[in-house]
Amino acid sequence: MSLTVVGSIAFDSVKTPFGERDRMLGGAAVHFSLAASFFTEVRPVGPVGDDFGAAEFEVLERRGVITDDIERVGGGRSFFWRGRYEYDLNVAHTEDTQLGVFGEFEPKLSAAAEAADMLFLANIQPDLQRQVRSQCESARFSALDSMNLWIDTAKDSLLAAIAEVDCLIVNDAEIRQLTGEPNLARAARAVMAHGPRAVVAKRGEYGAALFTGASFFALPGFPLEDVRDPTGAGDSFAGGFLGYLDSHDGELEESVLRRAMGYGTVLASFNVEQFGTERVASLSREEIEERFHQLHGMTQFEPLPAAR
Amino acid sequence: MSLTVVGSIAFDSVKTPFGERDRMLGGAAVHFSLAASFFTEVRPVGPVGDDFGAAEFEVLERRGVITDDIERVGGGRSFFWRGRYEYDLNVAHTEDTQLGVFGEFEPKLSAAAEAADMLFLANIQPDLQRQVRSQCESARFSALDSMNLWIDTAKDSLLAAIAEVDCLIVNDAEIRQLTGEPNLARAARAVMAHGPRAVVAKRGEYGAALFTGASFFALPGFPLEDVRDPTGAGDSFAGGFLGYLDSHDGELEESVLRRAMGYGTVLASFNVEQFGTERVASLSREEIEERFHQLHGMTQFEPLPAAR
Repeated sequence: MSLTVVGSIAFDSVKTPFGERDRMLGGAAVHFSLAASFFTEVRPVGPVGDDFGAAEFEVLERRGVITDDIERVGGGRSFFWRGRYEYDLNVAHTEDTQLGVFGEFEPKLSAAAEAADMLFLANIQPDLQRQVRSQCESARFSALDSMNLWIDTAKDSLLAAIAEVDCLIVNDAEIRQLTGEPNLARAARAVMAHGPRAVVAKRGEYGAALFTGASFFALPGFPLEDVRDPTGAGDSFAGGFLGYLDSHDGELEESVLRRAMGYGTVLASFNVEQFGTERVASLSREEIEERFHQLHGMTQFEPLPAAR
Repeated sequence: MSLTVVGSIAFDSVKTPFGERDRMLGGAAVHFSLAASFFTEVRPVGPVGDDFGAAEFEVLERRGVITDDIERVGGGRSFFWRGRYEYDLNVAHTEDTQLGVFGEFEPKLSAAAEAADMLFLANIQPDLQRQVRSQCESARFSALDSMNLWIDTAKDSLLAAIAEVDCLIVNDAEIRQLTGEPNLARAARAVMAHGPRAVVAKRGEYGAALFTGASFFALPGFPLEDVRDPTGAGDSFAGGFLGYLDSHDGELEESVLRRAMGYGTVLASFNVEQFGTERVASLSREEIEERFHQLHGMTQFEPLPAAR
């Protein structure tokens, strides 16, 4: 049981109609690691600058996240993102992105990170994803996230990276854009023809769908009356999903993947209840299990006992 | 077991990237009636013009739909809608709407239509919906659809109509617009505070969600690789939903409503596979049951037997 994730470790300044935070802990690898930490041993890989201090490390370490592969670059600044959300939280605006030390990032994994059972390649430049993928040869399951930027500017490299993983986890609009196919079922099939045996389409408040071979599974987003900050929801989903999978000893069969979708949905729902990492950092496994069972209750129905 | 529906009985000219049809049979009451006809006795109420002939009546009557309350207005023209869909079928453009005989419509229900056990008020002017509602006093369950036009131009009347039904069935964006509340869970609660004991949020390809009291249930749209024409999908959903409910003798408890959501989802999915009424008009109950069980299989997952 061990899970390596490569991706941004960042500071986020976020404004939503429900409040704002300046330079709070964020980044894909951070949200992913905190979510996965409830299930398994996680090693985030990525660079930070001098501005990343003891307080930030402590948030991760308190959750048991192993920070050995977080590389401190002297004289550098950490990745920074500033964004705001409209009253309809589905509409986000990026106001500033500063790559900082991420601009020169050359992933160098420790032996322990390389030996991970599972690997998540969060949304970074696809050539970097491939470098990390090639260092984690023994992973029994690997997944990849990406974004429209790389589809536009590095599509060949992205397709090569996708061919090397077991699972693609992206927004449904990105699956359509990547394949040029507006029908999601066809688009997912096109991705699988390229290599991955599973495709997870993240659908924001509508939840997520899982395509595997000829099978389809979908869960709604967990309904919440108070959503404060959607930043990191997709990475928390991936953390719950892969974290649960890594905690499962046996075959990753359909029933296991479905349960992992449930944990992904639950972790994403907690993530958005407060700003940044606030809610997930203070979460308990009991709260996760309780919401998982609530989600189960919200999605089950019984056909009539006898056909008519 | 009997179900009355009031709404448009129309001709539609539709163009999608997958073909086009000129003046095909359509309208909310038609799509609803055909979908509901697999479960119960349906009476559509609404006016048609001289252009509505034997061929159109036959499509309905072949499915057992009772056409006694379809009022032929001599010298008039039937409701007409022309629209086109983009390659992304979620984007529709209305190019022409001609009210025809619908402009002067005064609903006069037959005794049999008035005595219906269930009532569906499809999307028409809310004062007309209230007139019909007051004529069907004995209905044990009633539901209402509407659209942004009436929220903009007749909101008070619409709210009065909503207060008089058991269930609101509209698109999720319309629930938000109606209540001024972007959070769907809160918006649904605001609607229920107004009268209805259930709110169904239609979510297009993402499926549909059901709010009842403190309970929440959601189903994804049935995944299809070939979608040709989305026109009428929402009304076919409502027809499957209310048709199934009307076929159920006992209390309309949560488990029954959930099963009805499944039948609504299935009927909507068949509707979009071909243009207009083509697919649902030629459907069998066996095909419906088969897809219902497939949908069930796509939404179920098992928590771990023991808590950890």
